[in-house]
Amino acid sequence: MAKEFTFGVTVMPRKEVLDTQGRAVEETLKREGEPVVSARVGRYVELKVTGTTVKEAEATAQKISSGLLANTLIETFELKLL
Amino acid sequence: MAKEFTFGVTVMPRKEVLDTQGRAVEETLKREGEPVVSARVGRYVELKVTGTTVKEAEATAQKISSGLLANTLIETFELKLL
Repeated sequence: MAKEFTFGVTVMPRKEVLDTQGRAVEETLKREGEPVVSARVGRYVELKVTGTTVKEAEATAQKISSGLLANTLIETFELKLL
Repeated sequence: MAKEFTFGVTVMPRKEVLDTQGRAVEETLKREGEPVVSARVGRYVELKVTGTTVKEAEATAQKISSGLLANTLIETFELKLL
């Protein structure tokens, strides 16, 4: 019997890659005088999948994350079961 | 003496608002035969701020999140001290 599992997927730019969005946020905040040291911007996806076991559902989420949600060449992702 | 505090800010579209990115991800995955029930897409920002206390740093992060990172009319956000 298939159950539903929800995963939180956080996708962030790799440290070596220039994070243009993060830079823009950082500079805007600094210009406004906010006590900001740095900002990095990524994506967050809440993914609900079905599977017979947690293990199976996690494998699905892993596959989807590396195949569609993240560009692993320039981004890293982290899966968390919610 | 000011210390540095890092916050993880998760910004998600409100439930009442049509999440076009999430819909696109959901439909693409379903079309590819993945066992996906739903997908919601938001942003994740790692924000490093300075403050003399956690309380002060959190107030700064809160202000920045509601003022710049999230459009609270159509989005909600969640702060987490990392």
